[in-house]
Amino acid sequence: MTLKKVNPDLEKERSTCTFNIEELTNLLDTGAHCTAERRAVEDKVFSVKELKDEIPDEFLSHKERYENAIRKSVFLHKVLQETGVKRGVYNRSDKSDFRTTYYSIFKDGSPFMLQYSMFVPTILGQGDSEQVELWYKRALNMEIIGTYAQTELGHGTFIRGLETEAVYDEKTEEFILNSPSLSSYKWWPGGLGHTTNYCIVMAQLKIKGKPYGMQPFIVQIRDEETHMPLPGVKVGEIGAKLAFNTVNNGFLGFEHVRIPRRHMLMRFSQVSKDGKFTSSANPKLAYGTMVMVRVTIVNSAATYLSRAVTIAIRYSAVRHQSKLKQNEPEPQILDYVTQQHKLFIGIATSHAYMFCSYWLWDVYVMYQKEQNVGNFDRLPELHALACCLKVISSSDCTGLVEKCRMSCGGHGFMMSSNLPQLYGISTATCTYEGENTVMLLQTARALVKAWELGSRGRPFSPTMSYFAEKNVPSKWDSSLEGILNAFQKVSIGKLSSSVSSLQEYTKSGLSAEDAWNKASVQLIGAAEAWGRAVVLSIYKSEIERYGQTVSPALKSVLFDLVELYYVHLTLEKMGDLLLYTQLSEKDVVSLRKKYEDLLEKIRPNAIGLVDAFDYRDEVLNSTLGSYDGFAYERLMTEAMKSPLNAEPVNQSFHKYIKPLMKGKL
Amino acid sequence: MTLKKVNPDLEKERSTCTFNIEELTNLLDTGAHCTAERRAVEDKVFSVKELKDEIPDEFLSHKERYENAIRKSVFLHKVLQETGVKRGVYNRSDKSDFRTTYYSIFKDGSPFMLQYSMFVPTILGQGDSEQVELWYKRALNMEIIGTYAQTELGHGTFIRGLETEAVYDEKTEEFILNSPSLSSYKWWPGGLGHTTNYCIVMAQLKIKGKPYGMQPFIVQIRDEETHMPLPGVKVGEIGAKLAFNTVNNGFLGFEHVRIPRRHMLMRFSQVSKDGKFTSSANPKLAYGTMVMVRVTIVNSAATYLSRAVTIAIRYSAVRHQSKLKQNEPEPQILDYVTQQHKLFIGIATSHAYMFCSYWLWDVYVMYQKEQNVGNFDRLPELHALACCLKVISSSDCTGLVEKCRMSCGGHGFMMSSNLPQLYGISTATCTYEGENTVMLLQTARALVKAWELGSRGRPFSPTMSYFAEKNVPSKWDSSLEGILNAFQKVSIGKLSSSVSSLQEYTKSGLSAEDAWNKASVQLIGAAEAWGRAVVLSIYKSEIERYGQTVSPALKSVLFDLVELYYVHLTLEKMGDLLLYTQLSEKDVVSLRKKYEDLLEKIRPNAIGLVDAFDYRDEVLNSTLGSYDGFAYERLMTEAMKSPLNAEPVNQSFHKYIKPLMKGKL
Repeated sequence: MTLKKVNPDLEKERSTCTFNIEELTNLLDTGAHCTAERRAVEDKVFSVKELKDEIPDEFLSHKERYENAIRKSVFLHKVLQETGVKRGVYNRSDKSDFRTTYYSIFKDGSPFMLQYSMFVPTILGQGDSEQVELWYKRALNMEIIGTYAQTELGHGTFIRGLETEAVYDEKTEEFILNSPSLSSYKWWPGGLGHTTNYCIVMAQLKIKGKPYGMQPFIVQIRDEETHMPLPGVKVGEIGAKLAFNTVNNGFLGFEHVRIPRRHMLMRFSQVSKDGKFTSSANPKLAYGTMVMVRVTIVNSAATYLSRAVTIAIRYSAVRHQSKLKQNEPEPQILDYVTQQHKLFIGIATSHAYMFCSYWLWDVYVMYQKEQNVGNFDRLPELHALACCLKVISSSDCTGLVEKCRMSCGGHGFMMSSNLPQLYGISTATCTYEGENTVMLLQTARALVKAWELGSRGRPFSPTMSYFAEKNVPSKWDSSLEGILNAFQKVSIGKLSSSVSSLQEYTKSGLSAEDAWNKASVQLIGAAEAWGRAVVLSIYKSEIERYGQTVSPALKSVLFDLVELYYVHLTLEKMGDLLLYTQLSEKDVVSLRKKYEDLLEKIRPNAIGLVDAFDYRDEVLNSTLGSYDGFAYERLMTEAMKSPLNAEPVNQSFHKYIKPLMKGKL
Repeated sequence: MTLKKVNPDLEKERSTCTFNIEELTNLLDTGAHCTAERRAVEDKVFSVKELKDEIPDEFLSHKERYENAIRKSVFLHKVLQETGVKRGVYNRSDKSDFRTTYYSIFKDGSPFMLQYSMFVPTILGQGDSEQVELWYKRALNMEIIGTYAQTELGHGTFIRGLETEAVYDEKTEEFILNSPSLSSYKWWPGGLGHTTNYCIVMAQLKIKGKPYGMQPFIVQIRDEETHMPLPGVKVGEIGAKLAFNTVNNGFLGFEHVRIPRRHMLMRFSQVSKDGKFTSSANPKLAYGTMVMVRVTIVNSAATYLSRAVTIAIRYSAVRHQSKLKQNEPEPQILDYVTQQHKLFIGIATSHAYMFCSYWLWDVYVMYQKEQNVGNFDRLPELHALACCLKVISSSDCTGLVEKCRMSCGGHGFMMSSNLPQLYGISTATCTYEGENTVMLLQTARALVKAWELGSRGRPFSPTMSYFAEKNVPSKWDSSLEGILNAFQKVSIGKLSSSVSSLQEYTKSGLSAEDAWNKASVQLIGAAEAWGRAVVLSIYKSEIERYGQTVSPALKSVLFDLVELYYVHLTLEKMGDLLLYTQLSEKDVVSLRKKYEDLLEKIRPNAIGLVDAFDYRDEVLNSTLGSYDGFAYERLMTEAMKSPLNAEPVNQSFHKYIKPLMKGKL
């Protein structure tokens, strides 16, 4: 459609970049060899013709999308096996896997997702050695396709409320699985609808009328040869969603379905033939997995944002609109400071959470080693960190993804920009694996407990150690250290104020529970403030650490972003800072100026910074964000793929419009 | 599925309501007779069987959705004609039309939308009497189907940059329409893709090589009998979008298409046979229409929010989850204060913008009368008001619609909740009819001008009159009047501070344009602050006015919401208030307590308040928000409509999954 290889606007931008883009890519990949490995796999996957779509998903029916996703899932599995990627599409076993990109061949997710991310890991983690031997290999070879069924129509985050029952029948040595109500139907598990033939079902164990809590059971739900649902199994898909429409989320109900006793996963709890229940499960062990999942969400949130901001900044560099000066041509919209204000914080925020996720991953790995020798000391803090960082990363990044979409004006509303889909999968991170408000309340619970123990002399864990510092500096200090210190004061101020409210409400006659509920808006604010202080601290210290090894040019740019992040957050949270620190109106005026100067300083590196995320066009999937910057050409090319455009006149003209025009309806 | 008529949770809620729901409905409808008229039309429309969907849109292909929407558009037109509703589906000729609900039979819009809202009104407004005579009746009878084509692939809000040309050829007395580049293709007009056969094209008029600015031309684009595109006309649809997928937005390019001279709409500007251009157009007249459209957007934004909050609050009343107290059953999630915090502000914000839109409509009607006698005095303020209120209503309401969706957890992610679709159509209001950031900058331009003129003694217009008051009260005052006054101080503070920055930047050597650009983040903040002060003021004064006629019980509830709105905004904008007013930490503590008390006070009326919006189940279209509250039953019923669930085994099992399982791929 055009002879030029790259839009001249982008060529010009790339020529002004002050740092080595590849060096930053390697840093984000956690090493040059990781970049090379990632690219090698990408080269393989993106060259498989069966993994390409003829017609974009958004034009297909719900059913066709599913069928398309199955085809791609199967061929992706094949190419990954050939490539030697053993662990499956979604399983992340190391932080370098965070940068895996090939699953973006599904704009909307794969129905095999839960096989890799939950079914196999749960067998490994909760099965005894005989069970692992039996099930693991079959699952790994895709002889059986599984999922993990926990959430029900009536219950999500509150696990104890789940209603599905597994009643032990010692006569036949079987469990009888039953769904006692509509609200007890499993609802949401990925792949469950029409894809999987096995699943791990979390159910309330009952023996001789007595409950023994939630236990995991392996249940076959479909025939391995015919794929027909087995007797007593009610299974189907839950319908269309805001995103993840190709994941085939399903529902599942049981009418007295019998499974052998040995289908309960028995690594930690056992039921003997005659119905005796024994358990060696340390409930703390369950927290480890939750922590791991939430660390990966921090990274996913940052990743979605990094893609959205790549698209939006590239588009802003090729889009010209309106006038800054009367006698000059229409400028790139990236030259508008309001546009820089919307977008540059997206780069910085993405860096902040990416580097935090790497740090948190390392803490988690350290904890795992300690846990293996029975040391759980680090768990309460780690659990609170994972909860809270999951919340603020998912909500911040989702908000900024949407800001990126809206910064592209009308064209950001086009599905072919891929920005709406990025928003869809990003906003889901606020809800799944622990709904954000519930997570903040859990964090608050941990903080109030630490605060109260601290007031009785108990030492604080590392990320709360500043709770002990009571001195407020007499003057505002705009250095990074000064701002970090101020945000710690805010965290103390909000926590202390929430605790006072709790005490007031209790004093006025409310029960402890009612007081907690009534002060809960303040409490989630205190939890958020602690998380902010953590992220500010970790982002800064990680960049300081990396700064010792990278080139001076890169170091300088990385610190521009840290500074932007700090000053932006200071202006955004100005109210809290005015309340709890010595920030004054004069400081605010000078911080605004500093912020405006920082945007100007980052402007020439904007394209270089997003190029450094190193997303191939196949990964971005965006008409607006391609490396060559030919946005309008791509918008038109994608539009022409609409089946409506395949014929000049749609049948509904003859059927409806013409009769209406002729008054003959 | 159930014998009870209404979920007992909702029955209980309705019994605690302290006011007369119908009285509030009548107030929202601007009169009891308006409620009756609205309901009468609803009864007709919602009883037409051709307007019902067998399979929900979200399961269909893009093409099927379009065909479905055409069918419904045609039958809706028919029933509205029979019902005597003359003005068409979307045209709003009075503020009582704001509450029209029947177009919600399209979850995603109608391809006839622009026929009613733009094509016909533009003919009426810009055609001379002969042209109106010729085209109006044909359009009204649907003998021709039209749209309005302004936006291009390369230009949106910046009208002067549009590239489509209309060159006058005096030899043949024709205009030659041409699209000189890809970016000049029209892009976005509703219905243009495959539905309309005529359109009004905005193009740069050129006569003898000289440009005469943008003019409107009526262009036939498809044959009336065959619907085939005419020679030289390149037309099709633009593809899938985040929402409005059934609107059939299209693209349009011209290759030297000739139209008769009299196809230029000539009410204000004329081209004579021999190519003489004359114009009596007062550019101010164009602003009137823009104002009108933006007033309706303020109302639309409030309407979308009122629907979302109805769904979320009803669901929160029937959803039980987790424990507030150990020995009690799981509470309704509406009892969690964090949930009330998310939702009650949605009711108040919806009221605030609805009542503001009624007020602004009245101002607009008053202006129209004055304009007809040549008085344009009110225009600058009205234009700034419409710009700014369009921005803050669209962004506030969209944010709260999304908060409603997320407050429903995973189920809010289901399309059958209708919350994702409400978000889609709501967020579009931030972009169309003037992109929000551009609108705020225009508002800021007006404010800075007024500020500078004011400093030279020129009087301020009514909504800026407080600019003249320089005295800052010595003490914080938490009354409504005190808070309003404080927000006016914030507006002054931010505007004054922006102007100082502009001056600083100019003094430091920047051109006026560069200084404006560099301070633009502050300037949009100042514009927003002015809009906030306006909304606070109008919402309060309107409720005070209504309060004189409604019952004491209703008055009390309406003021609870005003108070909630004021206190919520105070806590949200605490930073600005700490900076520019006497607000202290002690005041903040007491305001938090007040806010928590207000949530508790509003809690028993929550269901009554959303019932009063009076949306039939067919309008809400939501599994979670129905009047009877049987959310789980409806979720399952809707899921079963998925064509995937029509067969127990999908073909892709045999084609792909089984070969994979058997290692035979």
